Amino acid sequence: MSDEPAETASSQGLTHLRADGAVHMVDVSEKQITARRAVALGAVVTRPDVVELVAQGRLPKGEALAVARIAGIMAAKKTPELVPLCHPLPITGVDVELAPVGDRIEIRATVKTVGVTGVEMEALTAVSVAALTVYDMIKAVDKGAVIAEVRVLEKDGGKSGPWRSDDRREV
Amino acid sequence: MSDEPAETASSQGLTHLRADGAVHMVDVSEKQITARRAVALGAVVTRPDVVELVAQGRLPKGEALAVARIAGIMAAKKTPELVPLCHPLPITGVDVELAPVGDRIEIRATVKTVGVTGVEMEALTAVSVAALTVYDMIKAVDKGAVIAEVRVLEKDGGKSGPWRSDDRREV
Amino acid sequence: MSDEPAETASSQGLTHLRADGAVHMVDVSEKQITARRAVALGAVVTRPDVVELVAQGRLPKGEALAVARIAGIMAAKKTPELVPLCHPLPITGVDVELAPVGDRIEIRATVKTVGVTGVEMEALTAVSVAALTVYDMIKAVDKGAVIAEVRVLEKDGGKSGPWRSDDRREV
Amino acid sequence: MSDEPAETASSQGLTHLRADGAVHMVDVSEKQITARRAVALGAVVTRPDVVELVAQGRLPKGEALAVARIAGIMAAKKTPELVPLCHPLPITGVDVELAPVGDRIEIRATVKTVGVTGVEMEALTAVSVAALTVYDMIKAVDKGAVIAEVRVLEKDGGKSGPWRSDDRREV
Amino acid sequence: MSDEPAETASSQGLTHLRADGAVHMVDVSEKQITARRAVALGAVVTRPDVVELVAQGRLPKGEALAVARIAGIMAAKKTPELVPLCHPLPITGVDVELAPVGDRIEIRATVKTVGVTGVEMEALTAVSVAALTVYDMIKAVDKGAVIAEVRVLEKDGGKSGPWRSDDRREV
Amino acid sequence: MSDEPAETASSQGLTHLRADGAVHMVDVSEKQITARRAVALGAVVTRPDVVELVAQGRLPKGEALAVARIAGIMAAKKTPELVPLCHPLPITGVDVELAPVGDRIEIRATVKTVGVTGVEMEALTAVSVAALTVYDMIKAVDKGAVIAEVRVLEKDGGKSGPWRSDDRREV
Repeated sequence: MSDEPAETASSQGLTHLRADGAVHMVDVSEKQITARRAVALGAVVTRPDVVELVAQGRLPKGEALAVARIAGIMAAKKTPELVPLCHPLPITGVDVELAPVGDRIEIRATVKTVGVTGVEMEALTAVSVAALTVYDMIKAVDKGAVIAEVRVLEKDGGKSGPWRSDDRREV
Repeated sequence: MSDEPAETASSQGLTHLRADGAVHMVDVSEKQITARRAVALGAVVTRPDVVELVAQGRLPKGEALAVARIAGIMAAKKTPELVPLCHPLPITGVDVELAPVGDRIEIRATVKTVGVTGVEMEALTAVSVAALTVYDMIKAVDKGAVIAEVRVLEKDGGKSGPWRSDDRREV
Repeated sequence: MSDEPAETASSQGLTHLRADGAVHMVDVSEKQITARRAVALGAVVTRPDVVELVAQGRLPKGEALAVARIAGIMAAKKTPELVPLCHPLPITGVDVELAPVGDRIEIRATVKTVGVTGVEMEALTAVSVAALTVYDMIKAVDKGAVIAEVRVLEKDGGKSGPWRSDDRREV
Repeated sequence: MSDEPAETASSQGLTHLRADGAVHMVDVSEKQITARRAVALGAVVTRPDVVELVAQGRLPKGEALAVARIAGIMAAKKTPELVPLCHPLPITGVDVELAPVGDRIEIRATVKTVGVTGVEMEALTAVSVAALTVYDMIKAVDKGAVIAEVRVLEKDGGKSGPWRSDDRREV
Repeated sequence: MSDEPAETASSQGLTHLRADGAVHMVDVSEKQITARRAVALGAVVTRPDVVELVAQGRLPKGEALAVARIAGIMAAKKTPELVPLCHPLPITGVDVELAPVGDRIEIRATVKTVGVTGVEMEALTAVSVAALTVYDMIKAVDKGAVIAEVRVLEKDGGKSGPWRSDDRREV
Repeated sequence: MSDEPAETASSQGLTHLRADGAVHMVDVSEKQITARRAVALGAVVTRPDVVELVAQGRLPKGEALAVARIAGIMAAKKTPELVPLCHPLPITGVDVELAPVGDRIEIRATVKTVGVTGVEMEALTAVSVAALTVYDMIKAVDKGAVIAEVRVLEKDGGKSGPWRSDDRREV
């Protein structure tokens, strides 16, 4: 572990840490309001037969994937309640996709706002809670399912401009 | 995709689906109240230098990891608000550990209750939200960090008895 | 308006009013824990063509009614946050049905608990929020839709025993 | 039930449904911010003697109607937590009126915002939760009370301009 | 400041600190369920003319104090959402009193439960939020009002038995 | 008590009271959006030895004060959920300081927004909940600790301009 003082953490980019090492909600009063968007990905990895059971939810009257989608959308709105130093934001749009593919349910969330901070936390929260909801529904048949590789795919808007995850790092 | 009707999903173990494919919150009125415990794991995978920055939060006055721990504990209590078909439960204890190891922050949550259903959803939610909180604090220095392998390690209590994830499946 | 003092209100059955007219959350510490159940009904009244549009949500991949069902289930869990003098209760099961019939979507919620107070408020809240969610989805095509006749159909459990709404009063 | 594909639902006005029938939170990033207002109505129908008991809450020290008013105001702020596809909005004003008239408590909520979407859902939610709160307070004396005809009376602001419910449809 | 290690804090009674100094939600799985009660006090100190304005809320149709009472009752139910390491508890009764006396509004909250932990946090939270609500209503006429001496008056139930604050310490 | 009608209360500055004495959420639709800031203070008064125990939380791995800080930050975001007539606001920054001094933990919260109303309620709520969290952690060693003198120190922004508490009134 580094011997450098915590003060350095802030100067090196951990903006939630003040000079004395205490956390705060960063002041964004001066930031410009712009249209912003973020996309996050993730997956619940289970067995192919379990994926088939869940996918039946798309048959007439079935609705297993709908529950996860709605849980993800609602969770995006709850992000500042869950992530302590996250600013409240007026979300202007949310899409959550769930795709059964082989042994996994792939999840993708797109969140938009017109505001002063980015919405990657909202997109990640939507993916995470949609994934938790899928796990909840399949745990009776596969307790060993894994929520895998929740991450940001791309974001744009704001001073820093567009960013895209170009290489998928191995985990 | 299977041509089997959604009814089969329920009979095969997707207990949240009724015979007509609609979801419901399963009736647990008849289940026994027992002491229960679940442990979940996960990690935020980033770069070693970022892990060092975060770990500085354990130096005097620093508190980066404390934020994630507390976010995880508070999220465990919010589980039934986030996961639509999850029953409310009287949580009786929560521990959230965060360990900086190499290029990642490993997270482990243990949740206990004395109730009618298991607490694996609460443990997974604690890990997920602690991981989201770590991502929030490091995103200024590593937007490409990944929340990896959130899963249940073990659970016990209830009629089905103890369960332990014995093999770590590759994701 | 009656000239009788507020004190009488309490003695005549408005149990949330104390002798001095102030409200409180009634003390139920001494009440017995029993299995309880309540069923509530209601409907969103609109036009037959709008009902058809919503009912398409039951076709493959559609999920309009699922959203309302899940909103109702989640709202049942939020009842003590919404209704100020309502006691928190460990809900043990929730079913929300939505049936498109002619010019309306009929809604029926069944809530169960093992606790010290009844769950009619939870059932009514589930119906009301499911109805609000239906309205939200159809308001672009029928702003004039009406949420009609939200009421308790039956309840059982507790010292007072089963109760059933026998006559449908005209409203 | 119609054989038309769910895609048509969206093109016919169910804006929360995407072309594939899945729901989403509609993107309103491009909408103009304007002052908006909505008024909703409803009633709790019970017996005249129960209405008198509740109305005593307006006598010195009594406060039965105040509870329902406050519950309605607080619920307006919770609307996006309750209605899954509803956008969060900065509410700028709320009034909730409760009038004991004959055998019913009439409820009227007016909500204002300066934002990109209308506030009819907030007004309807305020009326519904105020009505649930009235029911909660009178259920010991009239379990058969009915929440009747919750609907929008008028709304204005936004591109579509003012709208007013001109005829009270029978329900 | 002491040079003693954080481990000592736990052994000396700060039960939320583990041996390694990290916080956790204490495990209460083994504790007995008993009837418990706590009473907390506090006051909002302002000017006599402001107290008179607020007290008018008890005149016909006025309801200023009712708002604070209801806010306190609802906040008691939110305690585990606000205080991170607080266990969720099934509150069985809440009373909040507000008494205009001279230059202050005195507040007293009594909370009851049948559970494994005490309810002093719930009582203190009820007093604090009722006081914040009073401040909110009078801030237009007295920004300098002070929330003073929020404290526990007495508690009983549980293994430790009854406790009563016998001397009012000067603050 | 005054014999003046409640109507006077409003005209004398209790803006949450309407002419008929009923409360409402004041309409701020016409107010200007400006940068605003508020600072609130308070303290938890206990014994010097307890303050030392808590302050150990700033030693390596300890985190007692961090919990209170985070609870305060999160509570600031919850203010409109807790204080019934408070408008929702887009908070743009929060700092919560906790300083162990003699027999007390002094607390200071600074909240910023760019909005139509002031943020003194958010700052007071942050202080109150941070204080409740400190009490929760020390109650095992000092049930008699007191939350003392929660008040606004200064506020600026908005039409009324800067305000500062110049004299500390005795309570």
